Amino acid sequence: MKTIDVCLTPELLHLYDLQNSTVVVTDILRATTCMVTALAHGAEGLIALSDVEDCLKMKSQGYITVGERDGKKMPGFDKGNSPFEYMGDDIRGQKIAFTTTNGTQAIEKSKGASEIIIGSFLNLNRIAKYLLFNDRHTVIVCAGWKGRVNMEDTLFAGALIDRLKQHLGSDCDAPLLSQYLYNLAKGNLVDFLKEASHVQRLRNLGITKDIEFCLQFDQYDILPVMKNGLFRI
Amino acid sequence: MKTIDVCLTPELLHLYDLQNSTVVVTDILRATTCMVTALAHGAEGLIALSDVEDCLKMKSQGYITVGERDGKKMPGFDKGNSPFEYMGDDIRGQKIAFTTTNGTQAIEKSKGASEIIIGSFLNLNRIAKYLLFNDRHTVIVCAGWKGRVNMEDTLFAGALIDRLKQHLGSDCDAPLLSQYLYNLAKGNLVDFLKEASHVQRLRNLGITKDIEFCLQFDQYDILPVMKNGLFRI
Repeated sequence: MKTIDVCLTPELLHLYDLQNSTVVVTDILRATTCMVTALAHGAEGLIALSDVEDCLKMKSQGYITVGERDGKKMPGFDKGNSPFEYMGDDIRGQKIAFTTTNGTQAIEKSKGASEIIIGSFLNLNRIAKYLLFNDRHTVIVCAGWKGRVNMEDTLFAGALIDRLKQHLGSDCDAPLLSQYLYNLAKGNLVDFLKEASHVQRLRNLGITKDIEFCLQFDQYDILPVMKNGLFRI
Repeated sequence: MKTIDVCLTPELLHLYDLQNSTVVVTDILRATTCMVTALAHGAEGLIALSDVEDCLKMKSQGYITVGERDGKKMPGFDKGNSPFEYMGDDIRGQKIAFTTTNGTQAIEKSKGASEIIIGSFLNLNRIAKYLLFNDRHTVIVCAGWKGRVNMEDTLFAGALIDRLKQHLGSDCDAPLLSQYLYNLAKGNLVDFLKEASHVQRLRNLGITKDIEFCLQFDQYDILPVMKNGLFRI
């Protein structure tokens, strides 16, 4: 039986065997949701960089640059971290370089994996279908918040496990815990997450519309996989 | 408002400010439950050591020695990690040195804290009462399983937060997550934990009786606090 694990924050990645695993990285609010949205709207490819300067430099190679820290767009960058910025004609055929508070750090730290996939609620079903026929062990990596766990990424892990549990095993409690939480939340994710810390942070920035968008299931039937450093579908 | 945080595994301790905090360390199955039981039955004091050799050496200072790895008693030690070993007359007035797979490691890693308390379901209420009138920030440190999160320690964190939530705040999701899980589980902890990984490990070792004992609320009205390296009540 294939197995599935949940790494609740990138700070715990050293405990997992990534080398022989497919890693699904998720940062629901909002990095990986933005990435999935951009690819679904025709972006050619995405690169994730943890360092601000490295990301800005990608401008000279024709990339659209995205820079976010603590929920806010950084000066000098083309775009911020709202999924609504990744639906227009300006995205089609473009390459985009992202640096964000948590999501791009989680991707960088996952680079030892056999395969890295970008996960969000928007493309949940496509990922579940893919993993069913994948022979590798899977590790879901939650981006969390500055090293700590967060609720929304844990719920994504629970949702993915919920769709796969008949087929995959695990010997650790993080998948179990994520699944229980997802089952509590699934009737109304937006409502359930009202008390979550990052939802409150974003609400203070006035981005309720983003939160609702990020918590929609199965909007895009795409599988963003990293090849030669670039995520494509 | 005072705050309360949950560190879901000792691997995340570097993210928390221990220096100005009261830390409550918990390893429900079974290290901290054994410690609380021993103190409630008259042990004079306990020391927690992560290293096996360091622990064995305490014999020469008159300590009863406890050595457990992966759920099993180690050769050369006086006792293993079952709470039923800490209720007899042989415990009264004794000093005990513990080394266990997860619990004593969590205690060692917490040593930068202002104050360290040993927590279990058995003395939950006493800890909650103490924290209410304590001026420091609190961090609940879950021992987990070899660096990963586990369900039973997370439930203890949720239970403690549940008793304090009217009085203490938090800006991170681990307390919220623990509390949701505890609320799912509290009707029947033994039943809820049937799928948890360490419960299955212990059940395979034939120690169902221990599990049931460890999951009882408020049996002992004691507060084990570390002073000069020794836990006493």
